[in-house]
Amino acid sequence: LQPFEINILGVGSATPHLGRHMSAQLVKIHTQYLLIDCGEGTQYQLLQYGLPINKINYIFISHLHGDHYYGLIALLSTMSMYGRTNELIIFAPKGLQEIIELQLKYSESVLNYKATFIDLTTETKQLLLKEKKWYVEFFPLNHRIKTFGFLFHEITPSNKLIKEALPKDITLAEIAQLKLGNSVYNTDGSIKIKIDEVTLPPTVARSYAYCSDTAYLPHLSQWIPGVDVLYHESTFLNALQNRAETTYHSTAEQAAKVASAAKVNTLILGHFSSRYKTTTEFESEAKEIFDTTYVAHEGMKIVINEPKENNPYVRIYTI
Amino acid sequence: LQPFEINILGVGSATPHLGRHMSAQLVKIHTQYLLIDCGEGTQYQLLQYGLPINKINYIFISHLHGDHYYGLIALLSTMSMYGRTNELIIFAPKGLQEIIELQLKYSESVLNYKATFIDLTTETKQLLLKEKKWYVEFFPLNHRIKTFGFLFHEITPSNKLIKEALPKDITLAEIAQLKLGNSVYNTDGSIKIKIDEVTLPPTVARSYAYCSDTAYLPHLSQWIPGVDVLYHESTFLNALQNRAETTYHSTAEQAAKVASAAKVNTLILGHFSSRYKTTTEFESEAKEIFDTTYVAHEGMKIVINEPKENNPYVRIYTI
Repeated sequence: LQPFEINILGVGSATPHLGRHMSAQLVKIHTQYLLIDCGEGTQYQLLQYGLPINKINYIFISHLHGDHYYGLIALLSTMSMYGRTNELIIFAPKGLQEIIELQLKYSESVLNYKATFIDLTTETKQLLLKEKKWYVEFFPLNHRIKTFGFLFHEITPSNKLIKEALPKDITLAEIAQLKLGNSVYNTDGSIKIKIDEVTLPPTVARSYAYCSDTAYLPHLSQWIPGVDVLYHESTFLNALQNRAETTYHSTAEQAAKVASAAKVNTLILGHFSSRYKTTTEFESEAKEIFDTTYVAHEGMKIVINEPKENNPYVRIYTI
Repeated sequence: LQPFEINILGVGSATPHLGRHMSAQLVKIHTQYLLIDCGEGTQYQLLQYGLPINKINYIFISHLHGDHYYGLIALLSTMSMYGRTNELIIFAPKGLQEIIELQLKYSESVLNYKATFIDLTTETKQLLLKEKKWYVEFFPLNHRIKTFGFLFHEITPSNKLIKEALPKDITLAEIAQLKLGNSVYNTDGSIKIKIDEVTLPPTVARSYAYCSDTAYLPHLSQWIPGVDVLYHESTFLNALQNRAETTYHSTAEQAAKVASAAKVNTLILGHFSSRYKTTTEFESEAKEIFDTTYVAHEGMKIVINEPKENNPYVRIYTI
């Protein structure tokens, strides 16, 4: 099974709190490393947890509030000083390229690699990036400024052929049928090759959704149905629901409602207001509605294994 | 004696190194807090060491390489979120205001206080800021882009009157003479009031110079004669003197030469290249030329006490 892991680098919100860096996550999907958001100090967090800075080829910035991108310019510069030559693709709302280029201009610096910025804009869920074995979709959230959520999805792999079990005279067309998960039939309708005798079932395509920052958005659940892991911001507890509304943020209870409606497997809460000195209450509040909830912390690693019945296949570790 | 202290928040150079944040120092001079440079994560370092974020009224940015200012936008935002209303003065080379304003524009944010940017430019040592009891001068260093050093200086205080010792019929003009350190004379030239019988001598004006980043600059010593503390960058050891030259940086030996020529009391080295895993060699290299040398580390506090003979009046602590 190829890796599908999320490394949490920061769980704070706009106002700083010791021990809670600002939003940033490193996702490893198969052989690729993807960075989601890049708050101040992200490069130090990557070093701290021994994660590879120059294996990151894609960066996804949800929105242009500072706690989600102030660490980017330093990371881009460091990538260059570390000798990067590979292209880096940065998905972000319009404006980030202008900011980065202005900073490079005044430092009279150039990056030693190509940094390509792709301006995000969409009114609904849309494909953003398609690789051979996984793809990324994005969708608008409801925040004070233009903000996007991201859905990382494996491409459903085909059935695995058991070579020794295949008939010697099998045709390419028949192999294609088997890979799609279909038995092969004779022209009279009788079974020629029974699918479960010559193939192993495919592993299920795994998925991860990142939704931060956003006000409570009931229709969000329709865009992320049945994802294995949902990271949803919960800046506030429900006692401050009004404050959440006026600042376009969510409460732990609201995040749990989205998780429950979307029938996700595991909910991860993050982006905590610095007014909360501990985060245990976020978990208990969410668990009233959605049981498999975890509170994110710096250095948390979430591993999505192969779904099997009666087995918590999403595992939580500390790096 | 009023406080005159330097808190070291970061000692790294451009490439990140765990345990060495980028350049930033908080100077307390009398009742004021001044921030010099503001590398990534400075706001966390201020929190970490329990230093007051919103008592800073002046910020001095030496130059627009990222390791000296990438933490500024986050600090300015946090000051606003913490409820600041006092004006903040930021001295920096031209360009910083444009960078900060662009970032605020795209986050659709405004600061709740007035941030005034003063563009630095000078060809020689010049007065930058004069308060009642201290002043700041600045001067050009020799770096790849426009870079300035800063000299923080107390104003020589006047002689302290011993009230009980003063004649009852003393005039205001006579008091002014005494405060200047002069005795008061009768018209026939004889002494009326002898200075050392009615006053205590003034404490000596203390001073601190910050010089980072710069190539070895022999004439620098003329701008900072006899300062109590000199912070001088030493990105490299002397074995890499060529590399220092091509990158417009200094070696520990070169920093010591400046300290020696300027006859400073104490030299503090910082801005170490991440290629050096320990910094002890910087100290030993500099000490060959200038004995009272210390290697800076995060959380170092340098206290300038009253100079007294045979007494190391500059004291080094760890916060």
